Amino acid sequence: MAGDGRSKEHMVMFMPDGKAVAVTGGTTILEAARLAGIELDAVCGGEGKCGRCRVRPEGPVKGGESPLLNDEERKAGVVLACLAVVEGDLSVDILPRSRIGRHQILTKSVEDVPRPLSPWVRKEFYQLPPATIWDNVGDLERLCRALGRSQLPMPLEALRELSDELRSGSWKVTVTLSTVDSSDEITRVEPGETTSQLLGIAVDIGTTTVVVDLVDLLKGEVLGTASDYNRQITRGEDVIARMMHGEEGGAQELTNLVRETINGLIGRLLAGESKRRGREVLPTDIVAVSVAGNTVMTHFFAGLPTRHMRLEPYVPVAHRPGFFKAAELGLKTNSSARVLLFPSRAGYVGGDVVADVLASGMFRSDKLSMLIDVGTNGEIVLGKKDWLVSCACSAGPAFEGGEVSSGMRAMDGAIDRIRINDDLSTSYHVIGDLPASGICGSGLIDLVAEMYCKGVIDRKARIQNLHSNRVRATDAGFEYVVEKREKLGAGATGDLVITDADVQNLLRTKAAIYGACSTLLKKMGENLENVSSIVIAGGFGYHLDVGRAIWIGMFPDVPLEKYRFIGNGSLGGSRMALLSEKRRNEMLDIFNSMTYLELSVDNDFYAEFSSSLFIPHTDIGRFPSAPPERVCKEGPN
Amino acid sequence: MAGDGRSKEHMVMFMPDGKAVAVTGGTTILEAARLAGIELDAVCGGEGKCGRCRVRPEGPVKGGESPLLNDEERKAGVVLACLAVVEGDLSVDILPRSRIGRHQILTKSVEDVPRPLSPWVRKEFYQLPPATIWDNVGDLERLCRALGRSQLPMPLEALRELSDELRSGSWKVTVTLSTVDSSDEITRVEPGETTSQLLGIAVDIGTTTVVVDLVDLLKGEVLGTASDYNRQITRGEDVIARMMHGEEGGAQELTNLVRETINGLIGRLLAGESKRRGREVLPTDIVAVSVAGNTVMTHFFAGLPTRHMRLEPYVPVAHRPGFFKAAELGLKTNSSARVLLFPSRAGYVGGDVVADVLASGMFRSDKLSMLIDVGTNGEIVLGKKDWLVSCACSAGPAFEGGEVSSGMRAMDGAIDRIRINDDLSTSYHVIGDLPASGICGSGLIDLVAEMYCKGVIDRKARIQNLHSNRVRATDAGFEYVVEKREKLGAGATGDLVITDADVQNLLRTKAAIYGACSTLLKKMGENLENVSSIVIAGGFGYHLDVGRAIWIGMFPDVPLEKYRFIGNGSLGGSRMALLSEKRRNEMLDIFNSMTYLELSVDNDFYAEFSSSLFIPHTDIGRFPSAPPERVCKEGPN
Repeated sequence: MAGDGRSKEHMVMFMPDGKAVAVTGGTTILEAARLAGIELDAVCGGEGKCGRCRVRPEGPVKGGESPLLNDEERKAGVVLACLAVVEGDLSVDILPRSRIGRHQILTKSVEDVPRPLSPWVRKEFYQLPPATIWDNVGDLERLCRALGRSQLPMPLEALRELSDELRSGSWKVTVTLSTVDSSDEITRVEPGETTSQLLGIAVDIGTTTVVVDLVDLLKGEVLGTASDYNRQITRGEDVIARMMHGEEGGAQELTNLVRETINGLIGRLLAGESKRRGREVLPTDIVAVSVAGNTVMTHFFAGLPTRHMRLEPYVPVAHRPGFFKAAELGLKTNSSARVLLFPSRAGYVGGDVVADVLASGMFRSDKLSMLIDVGTNGEIVLGKKDWLVSCACSAGPAFEGGEVSSGMRAMDGAIDRIRINDDLSTSYHVIGDLPASGICGSGLIDLVAEMYCKGVIDRKARIQNLHSNRVRATDAGFEYVVEKREKLGAGATGDLVITDADVQNLLRTKAAIYGACSTLLKKMGENLENVSSIVIAGGFGYHLDVGRAIWIGMFPDVPLEKYRFIGNGSLGGSRMALLSEKRRNEMLDIFNSMTYLELSVDNDFYAEFSSSLFIPHTDIGRFPSAPPERVCKEGPN
Repeated sequence: MAGDGRSKEHMVMFMPDGKAVAVTGGTTILEAARLAGIELDAVCGGEGKCGRCRVRPEGPVKGGESPLLNDEERKAGVVLACLAVVEGDLSVDILPRSRIGRHQILTKSVEDVPRPLSPWVRKEFYQLPPATIWDNVGDLERLCRALGRSQLPMPLEALRELSDELRSGSWKVTVTLSTVDSSDEITRVEPGETTSQLLGIAVDIGTTTVVVDLVDLLKGEVLGTASDYNRQITRGEDVIARMMHGEEGGAQELTNLVRETINGLIGRLLAGESKRRGREVLPTDIVAVSVAGNTVMTHFFAGLPTRHMRLEPYVPVAHRPGFFKAAELGLKTNSSARVLLFPSRAGYVGGDVVADVLASGMFRSDKLSMLIDVGTNGEIVLGKKDWLVSCACSAGPAFEGGEVSSGMRAMDGAIDRIRINDDLSTSYHVIGDLPASGICGSGLIDLVAEMYCKGVIDRKARIQNLHSNRVRATDAGFEYVVEKREKLGAGATGDLVITDADVQNLLRTKAAIYGACSTLLKKMGENLENVSSIVIAGGFGYHLDVGRAIWIGMFPDVPLEKYRFIGNGSLGGSRMALLSEKRRNEMLDIFNSMTYLELSVDNDFYAEFSSSLFIPHTDIGRFPSAPPERVCKEGPN
């Protein structure tokens, strides 16, 4: 018996981690890695489509071949982990780019909260007359009497603790009250006087990353920030892949994964705060939660189905699901803490964009502003005090490392700034000052701009057949060598290149963004000159060289001083709503007043998109500051 | 190995059921019976105190002896199941009185609901414009738009189903709306037009029995009534025993048991209604729930701790816990159905009494009324339109079969009416027209009255040493033979007797009730002549001969036509609140206006109680219609 069972188990050792896991035959290397606690990049959700989970196994493996691998990789024995099936004891080298590592996640955000602060929770201290046989009214009613209220609702979870809390504090208690939809409820009763501590969290749920702020609701200070990858990421990189995974029976798993991500971050923040204070700060001390995320993430977080959002006509279950209790959403905070979910305007203009607009303040200005949030998708908002209009374009994950062979996230080892020298060699900066492993979004924009300036690509973004060892022909067309293998990190299996197909993907992405911007302006009868500021929100803007983004025709050509960066506006807006009633009312005003333009059925958008499939644009006159074409024709020296 | 394990297991066969169960050595027979699905009576919670779980085992048993068993029983090999430990394979005869059987549970109740009906739920039919790419607003917002509302909250559970319900009905839907605390919420969305069906349930949670009505909320008709023992009963007969069990770690179990009882009844009602209609009626069709119960039962049902209610100063967690969702309370109805919990006035004047008062209508009258509910405890309410005052007395379970050796519930085999003939033999009626197994509450009142009239007991309720084979001396004092063994049911182990101790228990119970009634009158400065009606609520009143209850000095001596019986007022009140907003407001008025008098620290009560420890009373003038003492002295012929 024992022999039979063991014959089906194989040991898989992952290098350089040195982590081993026992699996049954038939398990893929990707699954084995998950079991070993190693997060491999699987943009496509493990379907062999993205080609990112490259590993080099030694030992008996079946399958794993893919046209996404090049000859060099094939020779080196590289396979896709999601397609490679374990057939015996293995040692597996993980190639650096395949790994989801620590990367630079934005935690910076603007602060702009009116004083005095007005979170929806407050604390009040009371000394109650003890219960006696002559005054043996119920504990809840005794408390309400002290508060001068005939009745106050209290969630069952909190009510269960009430009697013990009253007595353990000898009838001296601090009451946490929440005001939800204009009515009060008792969130918590603590023994003793604790009015000097009132904690909440602000959450930004991104498709890729989740960031949580622990906030002192009395002082309006951020006590700590923690961020991590959204644990859903191994189930698909973008919202489409996630929704498909959800429809294939993985919905509950995705809900659990995003909640686990948030709970993990809460745990880290509480541990840090406990250490700082020298006494334990508990989950139950967190009595208010504000959450901003895109519509798909908000749905997964709330456990709502996403099926009808994925397919035309892209309908969410609810734009404004409600003001739920933490326990209903599986959050490890005080179970009665109220959770504000930012309302979404549309399936692809989510609560994160409402939070961006809130953080930007653009809705308060008499002058016209445009907000651009480029993440896995691109969302654009145009407007001012009187009106706001929004749209979304499926920018695709090109700028986040997907759909580009050498692309990677903005993390250690990523080229984030690059220049092409006259001899077509490159000078670049790598995050963490390491040997390069790939190129992140800002690096790719730099690269396309440089390739255009140096004549490596033409106005249609086709790589030119130049006489240089930096440009070479392959079966699939030309490719440009960004860096030679010998200068790359230890795990490199070949040169770092950008292919014709990569550049075309980047071209479509930039065309979608610019096309969306110009469509909004056109629809509203506005000119670019009237736009007083362009707000760049999201992690993407952090490393970005806006000048180069203008050169390639991705962002509108306005003076650089009109560009403004608000960083993680989703988190900033979430934090504002946590702290201020005025900001919460503004959040609702933005939600109610912002209209949504569906680009997928808009002919103007298709015209604008097509015109943008050039560098910088069919109509060069729109980009006066872009380098003239003749410069590009000079070619290499 | 196999041999070792088996040697610890013993088969226990229960007769006459023929049910067998395998248990390990050391298990008590009571535990074995529970495992076999047989409910034995265990008033004390299985602690050897009540002496009701009598069984006759054959085979190796250790322990089980008790001073509560008489000589005859000992000779016959009878033991207490809770004290008898299984030591080998056994056959166990269950004595009939030890079994919790089907008994007569009240389902009748008054109807007095103003029309048109106004439950807090209503249905509305809508045909929504289908979602298109030009109108792809969220499903919840589409629905709200059709309803002409900017926003309506919807519980997460219902929201999760919304998108599928809208589409499966081709955008023709019936919406169930609940109005809770003056604001609307969406409880359910069903495909198609179903406005002709709107179902709710009214629940009465008694310490002993639970009754559920399935109610048509459109017609105000009771579609079915189901009742059962409260499954908590095997964990102790009265609320004190239950609370102790809860404090010893059994709280969650007690919560589960009462919820299971209700859910079992809901299942039976739905099965019956499905059969009647010829199509399935589902739990999710039940969209409103009204629950009345005493304070302890309400706490267990809601999962609230009862510790501070058991001990002085007897403080409940909350008198008015809230208007929860069915899912929070573990009910197998529509998970978003709102559950109205009747508010309790005090630890021992619960929502059942508020419901009684509501059902009685006494709060609307200009004339003074008194309400008496005698169950495991006794509750008395005195008042009229302008004021209501309530109190509770621990009547003890004497009238429900506890604390009296021959007592049993009002079920098949119970003597419910009895007369003593001149030769001290008896004539009686047995429920179900079976041989007698014991005597229920109404029979005991008859019996005490008859014993007094025939001189078997004196004014102090001491059994007299009469020269009759019906009265005999035992070590513990005298006992009166109600019926000889040969005329009893097959399982009888001896004569059916009532002992001196039994009569003293009954005397204390009747004294507590009358003492409470007269204390309330005294406190309010009222005379009995001003009481225009006395309302008897609860199952106890159903079989009762009020005349005899007056004779023994239990109920006030007013003309019989002033007595009024409302049956199960707790269920009736619960049903009224389910159907009528006016009644719900009245429920709150009763709750708010009714004061509570704590008798346990009231000297007047102790004086009144002591004066009542005679038959009928120390002050015979209070009971002019009671038979004169000289009649009683005549003795047997």
